[in-house]
Amino acid sequence: MQPTRYAILGTGAIGGFYGARLERAGSEVHFLMHSEYEHVQEHGLMVESKDGDFHLPKVRAYKSPEEMPKCDVAIVAWKAVQNHLLPSLLPPVLKEDGVVLVLQNGLGVEEAAAAAAPGHRVFGGLCFICSNRIGPGHIRHLDYGSIRMAEYAPDGKPAGISDTLRRIGADFEQAGISVALLEDLVLARWQKLVWNIPYNGLSVVLDANTSELMENPDSLALVEGLMWEVLEGAAACGRVIPGDFVHKMLDMTRAMTPYRASMKIDYDERRPMEVEAIHGEPLRIAEAAGTELPLLKTLYHQLKFIGTRYGR
Amino acid sequence: MQPTRYAILGTGAIGGFYGARLERAGSEVHFLMHSEYEHVQEHGLMVESKDGDFHLPKVRAYKSPEEMPKCDVAIVAWKAVQNHLLPSLLPPVLKEDGVVLVLQNGLGVEEAAAAAAPGHRVFGGLCFICSNRIGPGHIRHLDYGSIRMAEYAPDGKPAGISDTLRRIGADFEQAGISVALLEDLVLARWQKLVWNIPYNGLSVVLDANTSELMENPDSLALVEGLMWEVLEGAAACGRVIPGDFVHKMLDMTRAMTPYRASMKIDYDERRPMEVEAIHGEPLRIAEAAGTELPLLKTLYHQLKFIGTRYGR
Repeated sequence: MQPTRYAILGTGAIGGFYGARLERAGSEVHFLMHSEYEHVQEHGLMVESKDGDFHLPKVRAYKSPEEMPKCDVAIVAWKAVQNHLLPSLLPPVLKEDGVVLVLQNGLGVEEAAAAAAPGHRVFGGLCFICSNRIGPGHIRHLDYGSIRMAEYAPDGKPAGISDTLRRIGADFEQAGISVALLEDLVLARWQKLVWNIPYNGLSVVLDANTSELMENPDSLALVEGLMWEVLEGAAACGRVIPGDFVHKMLDMTRAMTPYRASMKIDYDERRPMEVEAIHGEPLRIAEAAGTELPLLKTLYHQLKFIGTRYGR
Repeated sequence: MQPTRYAILGTGAIGGFYGARLERAGSEVHFLMHSEYEHVQEHGLMVESKDGDFHLPKVRAYKSPEEMPKCDVAIVAWKAVQNHLLPSLLPPVLKEDGVVLVLQNGLGVEEAAAAAAPGHRVFGGLCFICSNRIGPGHIRHLDYGSIRMAEYAPDGKPAGISDTLRRIGADFEQAGISVALLEDLVLARWQKLVWNIPYNGLSVVLDANTSELMENPDSLALVEGLMWEVLEGAAACGRVIPGDFVHKMLDMTRAMTPYRASMKIDYDERRPMEVEAIHGEPLRIAEAAGTELPLLKTLYHQLKFIGTRYGR
């Protein structure tokens, strides 16, 4: 059996890490590069990881998607704020029966990929990982690393688990990545939002890390209130997340070492924040279903305001 | 007729300004001082004002309320965060039939004064003024200056306009201060909160002045949303503020020169913020009446969190 041919769109903390792991494990991985192309051509990819450091001295790097071979799987791993690039960069790298795996946070991201690559199946992956790009072609993987994957269905219904998804999952497992295959992408995305919405948003507005948010009774009340609202949003989409899940997330976060949420890192480094994917889209979907989420709405508007102030 | 004898508790931006104006106009004013006592004994009070600068070289200043004569009217003009001082500092300065005038923002402040001085009538004053204390015994009055006054009633009902209130109002008018006498203190306080809740709170959380909050559509949505919630809170107390009032406040604020709200000044100067009086108490009163105000609740918890971070 031929190895799966992967295209990595977005070779940063996520795409660089998983792409390098897949390549090392025997998949054929092609990396689309932008500003880091020359550096990676010369020096390859360096991954520092709690699972063991490794270096790929020679990687298949490209400056444009047209130079890349057609691939079985295109992994979209840049931040959701870059998804306006999908229509120009995604279709050229896909085989006729190639599929897309979107490794991004938030809601609406598979829709964007599906719209950019009509006729191609789209999968979503939720990454539970602490990983940073610390220099050109240089990734530092701090903790965790598992992925929950599911297939996207335009009608929003659970799509089941196809052989294609199983094959992708097997490649990742082969690369030492723990994968859970799920039937219901929408449920998985709302579950991840239970964590992402409060911690990402409040970390920016309140200038705090996870443990600071957990230790103060007022911020904890906001974290909890937002989590319950996310459950309401999920319910508006017909997905039941039991209340126990909130307590599990709170306990898990309490047990974590103090963590700077990814949106806070983006904010501190003056990069665009994924506010629309993580906060805006869930809010709009819930409101379209007639469900008001006022805490989320407040947070969303605050983040949008703060986002416009980078330039001042 | 004897001039009214006033005690000023809190000789800062508010108490210093109005006290000096009353003194200059012929009332007998006694100022309770703390750290500024020596300076004011030596140099008096200096008021820079858009209505004309003036200097009172000799003022009646005291270091403790026990040294002060019993007064007709005690004006409580420190910030609401200092109201734990009322039981020890207020009773000693009151004549047997002396009354209290509370010049503070928020809700619950007359209750605190009434509890500290049982048997004395209590009035509330809403000051519409831009005024700062810029040094010991030195006040800068930038704009406005009018006061809306009403009598406090323990049952929360409109108390009408008594002769005592008229006399106090006349003293202020004599001092060139525009005064409106009102029957319903509760209504007046909720009306003022329509401005104070959004602009004071958001200016701190979003690090912005009034015009920055008005120009951005996201912060404007929060300002408006909070104003409508204040109307709901007022309604929960049986007070109808028409929707027109919201538009009036928005238009007025748009027309103002960019203004740093008083809570933002307190925050920037690392002084305690009046979060409980301005945000906490209205929230609790509305919730006790069964009215949820989720935007205000979010803002309240955020401000409380931010308030605990001064010391880090």
